[in-house]
Amino acid sequence: MTVAVVGAGIIGLSIAWRLRERGFEVTVLDSGERGAWHVAAGMLAPGGESAFEQPWLTRLLAESGERWPAFAAALGVDVGYDDAGTLGLAMTADDLADAARVWTRQKLALLRPSELREREPALSPRVRAGVYAPTERQVDPRKVVAALRDRLDGRIVARRVERLSDVDADTVVVAAGCGTAALTGLPVRPVKGQVLRLRGEPGLLRHVLDATVDGRHVYLVPRSDGEIVVGATQEERTDRAITAGGVHDLLHAAIDLVPGLAEAELVETTVGHRPGTPDNAPLLGRLRDNEIVAAGHHRNGVLLAPITADLIAGLVAGEEDPLLEHFAPGRF
Amino acid sequence: MTVAVVGAGIIGLSIAWRLRERGFEVTVLDSGERGAWHVAAGMLAPGGESAFEQPWLTRLLAESGERWPAFAAALGVDVGYDDAGTLGLAMTADDLADAARVWTRQKLALLRPSELREREPALSPRVRAGVYAPTERQVDPRKVVAALRDRLDGRIVARRVERLSDVDADTVVVAAGCGTAALTGLPVRPVKGQVLRLRGEPGLLRHVLDATVDGRHVYLVPRSDGEIVVGATQEERTDRAITAGGVHDLLHAAIDLVPGLAEAELVETTVGHRPGTPDNAPLLGRLRDNEIVAAGHHRNGVLLAPITADLIAGLVAGEEDPLLEHFAPGRF
Repeated sequence: MTVAVVGAGIIGLSIAWRLRERGFEVTVLDSGERGAWHVAAGMLAPGGESAFEQPWLTRLLAESGERWPAFAAALGVDVGYDDAGTLGLAMTADDLADAARVWTRQKLALLRPSELREREPALSPRVRAGVYAPTERQVDPRKVVAALRDRLDGRIVARRVERLSDVDADTVVVAAGCGTAALTGLPVRPVKGQVLRLRGEPGLLRHVLDATVDGRHVYLVPRSDGEIVVGATQEERTDRAITAGGVHDLLHAAIDLVPGLAEAELVETTVGHRPGTPDNAPLLGRLRDNEIVAAGHHRNGVLLAPITADLIAGLVAGEEDPLLEHFAPGRF
Repeated sequence: MTVAVVGAGIIGLSIAWRLRERGFEVTVLDSGERGAWHVAAGMLAPGGESAFEQPWLTRLLAESGERWPAFAAALGVDVGYDDAGTLGLAMTADDLADAARVWTRQKLALLRPSELREREPALSPRVRAGVYAPTERQVDPRKVVAALRDRLDGRIVARRVERLSDVDADTVVVAAGCGTAALTGLPVRPVKGQVLRLRGEPGLLRHVLDATVDGRHVYLVPRSDGEIVVGATQEERTDRAITAGGVHDLLHAAIDLVPGLAEAELVETTVGHRPGTPDNAPLLGRLRDNEIVAAGHHRNGVLLAPITADLIAGLVAGEEDPLLEHFAPGRF
């Protein structure tokens, strides 16, 4: 049976890889546009704040997080998977009041400033409180995509799909991120994010930092080579402009949190669009007899790649996991 | 007589243009590296704060400023010469105390906040005071250099000069900016500056803004096409890194001053090096019989291009202006 996957982002490539492992004849159609993975920091935060009201999404995030170590290992090359864990941080008393609600639900113990600085000496003395979340990890999405492309060598075709009816395959899997709306009519909207990449001394930071700084959410994801990803703005906009205000706000929060970053080099400013849905949970399942969709992963595309790949490859093979019913594309 | 000009920055090209007008056979040797002109905003501020202690430098700046309108006109194309004038601004009471000393010496009358906002409606209501300096103008250095290159068509040779003795000409003019130190042994040091270019609504700003914002000096130079140059850091460093702290400080001051700039696009981050000297006045004059130097213009290279070109072209022709003795390269 032939399967065409429309979209060569982290979701489409992961699905294609799993399909290929199951023996399907897979082709990935690549529009050439870099997806949200190119901008994403790669935080794997299954306990993230967005899912509390959605128990099935919470479960999907948690299960995919558990699959990441094996997924990364199976790729067979370094993809920056790092389990040093995350420090959740609050700068002011107001920030703490805000963050404490989430931390309490996650059952994370509050650390004193001295304990925080023992873990992360470069932190500002102004940081008021924080928690350590050992299960919140990171991966480098650019390395993941490069590894997946290697795995799919010869199966990726440069082609922009305008209509699904133009695609010739027994089954078509639409994993086109924000482009899914135009192909299927499903309610996937772009949520703009601006992300910076700094380069500092390797070892300046040891953990992912997930902070609220004067009411603004910012994360810092340090790679082993000294790169530090700083994100992200969240704007309901479709444009691709790097704005003075967006860059300022990220730098301001980052330097407030880690004053030594003022000396770091600003090496990249990027814009991406998260594929949002009305409830910001993904759309996973069958659209028509030979059409399957896997899109709308919003902020969780990297985290959800392993479980999405397993569920969708299973669905193509005729195994309908009961989890899928909670993410049916037609639920709106 | 043949003349070789070493350096294709705004100084070298201006000199070569004037020499060619006088009938000399000129060649400009271009290392291919963009000089400080590529980064410079192009403020023409002869009343600038740096020269009060140096009456001859003050006179040089003032006379060159007076020559700019004719210099720009003679180039025959639009080089962004704009005489809308500059607003000097102070954000806080401390900033005002600082700026007032300069403004008093310049004999500029203090404007009330309401008068400032009438001239420049996009200004923050937090701006405490300011002045209008009608003689402080602007030009676009990139357009000036492009126009000069056109004028010197066929006379510019791509060649990096390692030793002056390698240059075959009756007279060699060294106008190599920071590179002058290695060629001549003269004390020219690089002073790093980081500069941003934003793109906003054309017409958002009408004047050059030259401000002190919470103790930090920043200028905003609006072009007619909506580009706004934001500068500049001033660091005694030789590296070319765009730093998180440098970009942050410029954006912070710019957005504080003109809140609407938060929505402007950040289109360029650049680094340049001003060629500084021990007294930060230029080195203009004869080094040896057939070697003349014109370098070390520090922050004033664009402003000083017209008078430098006239003085040095005259010197090559045997006319030694008495002004030159105050800028003798051997004075240190």
